Amino acid sequence: MNKISFLVLFFFGINLFNLSAQSSDSLANRIFDESLLKGEAYKNLHDLCFNIGGRLAGSPQAAAAVEWGKQLMLHYQFDTVYLQEVTVPHWVRGEKEEAFVHSELLPKAKKMHICALGGSVATEKYGLKGKIIEVKNFDELKNLGKKVKGKIVFFNRPMDATLFSTFKAYGGAVDQRWKGASEAAKLGAIGVIIRSMSLRIDTLPHTGSMHYEDKVNKVPAAAISTKDADELSQLLTADPDLQFYFKMNCHYLPDATSYNVIGELKGSTLPHEIITVGGHLDSWDLAQGAHDDGSGVVQSIEIVRIFKTLGIKPKRTVRVVLFMNEEFGLNGGTAYSKFTKEKNEKLFLALESDAGGFSPRGFSIDTSEDVVKKISEICLPLKDYGIYDFRKGGSGADIYTLKKQGAITMDLMPDSQRYFDYHHNAADTFDKVNYRELQLGAAAMAGLIFLMDKAY
Amino acid sequence: MNKISFLVLFFFGINLFNLSAQSSDSLANRIFDESLLKGEAYKNLHDLCFNIGGRLAGSPQAAAAVEWGKQLMLHYQFDTVYLQEVTVPHWVRGEKEEAFVHSELLPKAKKMHICALGGSVATEKYGLKGKIIEVKNFDELKNLGKKVKGKIVFFNRPMDATLFSTFKAYGGAVDQRWKGASEAAKLGAIGVIIRSMSLRIDTLPHTGSMHYEDKVNKVPAAAISTKDADELSQLLTADPDLQFYFKMNCHYLPDATSYNVIGELKGSTLPHEIITVGGHLDSWDLAQGAHDDGSGVVQSIEIVRIFKTLGIKPKRTVRVVLFMNEEFGLNGGTAYSKFTKEKNEKLFLALESDAGGFSPRGFSIDTSEDVVKKISEICLPLKDYGIYDFRKGGSGADIYTLKKQGAITMDLMPDSQRYFDYHHNAADTFDKVNYRELQLGAAAMAGLIFLMDKAY
Repeated sequence: MNKISFLVLFFFGINLFNLSAQSSDSLANRIFDESLLKGEAYKNLHDLCFNIGGRLAGSPQAAAAVEWGKQLMLHYQFDTVYLQEVTVPHWVRGEKEEAFVHSELLPKAKKMHICALGGSVATEKYGLKGKIIEVKNFDELKNLGKKVKGKIVFFNRPMDATLFSTFKAYGGAVDQRWKGASEAAKLGAIGVIIRSMSLRIDTLPHTGSMHYEDKVNKVPAAAISTKDADELSQLLTADPDLQFYFKMNCHYLPDATSYNVIGELKGSTLPHEIITVGGHLDSWDLAQGAHDDGSGVVQSIEIVRIFKTLGIKPKRTVRVVLFMNEEFGLNGGTAYSKFTKEKNEKLFLALESDAGGFSPRGFSIDTSEDVVKKISEICLPLKDYGIYDFRKGGSGADIYTLKKQGAITMDLMPDSQRYFDYHHNAADTFDKVNYRELQLGAAAMAGLIFLMDKAY
Repeated sequence: MNKISFLVLFFFGINLFNLSAQSSDSLANRIFDESLLKGEAYKNLHDLCFNIGGRLAGSPQAAAAVEWGKQLMLHYQFDTVYLQEVTVPHWVRGEKEEAFVHSELLPKAKKMHICALGGSVATEKYGLKGKIIEVKNFDELKNLGKKVKGKIVFFNRPMDATLFSTFKAYGGAVDQRWKGASEAAKLGAIGVIIRSMSLRIDTLPHTGSMHYEDKVNKVPAAAISTKDADELSQLLTADPDLQFYFKMNCHYLPDATSYNVIGELKGSTLPHEIITVGGHLDSWDLAQGAHDDGSGVVQSIEIVRIFKTLGIKPKRTVRVVLFMNEEFGLNGGTAYSKFTKEKNEKLFLALESDAGGFSPRGFSIDTSEDVVKKISEICLPLKDYGIYDFRKGGSGADIYTLKKQGAITMDLMPDSQRYFDYHHNAADTFDKVNYRELQLGAAAMAGLIFLMDKAY
């Protein structure tokens, strides 16, 4: 065939790619049209990220975020907007952490990239220096017995890269971060260094919450970047007597008063039945909290904006909740659960978006297989937008207890491959979020709520 | 519930998220394990992007890429490695293009971001200046009639953002780029400016191939960034008499000799039946060609590396083809099709990856619905890795004609949301590719080939 024909065919070839029908106009389609064409979640996220930034519970930025969320709901003319008081811990990182490795094998001290884990105590004023001992798990730690005493324990078990779900990989490694300090301290360790929870090899340390057991010595706990963790491990093989030094002056301030931000679109015929949808307003302090969980916050607000713009009037009340302090104790989720219980509310559905603003692929639903199947049938129109995956599984951290109060609880499930590249580190910034992926997530949530409210 | 219990539940909550079973160990699983844990596609892509970079057909970089591909296949000990001669056009961009808008409403000339379309003629040496007239489609153009004469035509129809498939949105807009110049020239236009094929609003112009009709005056054709296109449109409303200036000295050099790079893993029991898998080795010149189509190239090679590493011996011969000049005339695809026809080869399957190194979501298969259904059943193990979407549709530009020769032709279908942010512009660089997404794509292709070869 001549070149011209080929080029023409080539053009049509592209045109034919992926031409399976996108269903004709329906309200579900119009929700997606509105979100993709005139979506405002993305610009609201820009505003949150650049005008407020990282917003750790108890911080002035978290307080500013509460006011921001309230004003945004008022701007969109939610029927009701109110704050729900929450007491939150107030931990501060203090000065930037420092860490060095000293070894006779190195020409000079080698800098390591660390950050304090959320909730950690500080080191002594001039830092902490000691021998360091590497383990992959708690059995190894226990087998070391007395060898741990007086040393820094280095937990270096990577997340399992072979797992498709990066959340599952995270679940299999995060015990090191959560309880590593106390387990090591029981054997006399003077501090712990934890391999960052990430599948990417780079120099960014990832923070995250940790926990001290009662009556166990509290020792300083820091995360080290994955690249540094690999290098430290190699150095330890060559020089088991190397000295690790780190300095942190993180500490707690008195508990602070903060708020869940709540806004409602009143139901048309069943206003006393509640659809809760939300994300968490707090974030870690190392970046803007764009994916975690600015995305969930702006997507949740976007649902009501879309409904109002399209004149969709759900039977049930849609209540958007911006939860305060998911990261550091779930205080907002607890307070909200208590509130609904005390009011003896009829909860229909509770949906959280807290897995990043990536392309939505489905929903994880904490209910029986039968109900999951039914929901997947109700939500068939979402398939046109790549929302295929309805599965029985966990639901959002802030809302999962609402199941006991009768709600069908679920989580938006976006593509998870990139999430832990940015999770709790300095890279969780606005530029990592794609307009279409974020807006598709908002539309997926709006579409599901619309279809579920209509079907039941 | 007290705070500690909540925190513990929170931890397990994360752990429970998305815990649906990933099937137990099988060869399909081991393919994914190898690709995710010890994948080499990503580092090979790094090498291609940084040591060679953009590789427009006919360029020294394209020649270097041919040698690179051959050496890489030899390094991985493919059973056979050979080059297949292809004559390609050799167009060069020349100096960086310039463009300005001159209007009495502006304090000074306003710079615009443009780039020549591939195959365009140059402007006069000192540039081209004229009035500019905006249209959205060819009907509008025709209705303008004589008003077009002596003017520059500005094609400004955006891609349809409401379409889930960005390829479909591209297919609905790219006619402006392909035939805009000749259609405008027929009415006496002196040049054309085309809105970039992108859904993102930014200042990056996107190049791409265009076509001059025989016996029609060849006028210079450039793409303008989406942001500039929007601004130019607004300016034209305020000042329809504004002058647009642009300068380009792109031109053709004599045709060049280049090559498809081919490497084979010989089939164990049906070596004369061929599974063709590939991507295109050439790219546009504005960036590294990381997603388009460095990704497809390294993924295709990775399939054979994985098979050899795991000791998988397919019944049929797996032939990896790195096609030369997909972007500018499909010469490599044409030459390969001719080659297989002349040898009267038995073609079983032909698979291309040319839609970016993003999370794989399925395959577009150019066959009957029945066969698509059967393939989706055969490929059920891929579902554990998010590969749900097997659909009847177009196949790769380089391989779709192989259908006539009996092959089942198909395309890897990754998530398409970000593709046109980088397509043919300066942003198609290595840093836009995620290790896991790229390696999952390679594993999806390897898994499909393994399962199909086994089933048939």
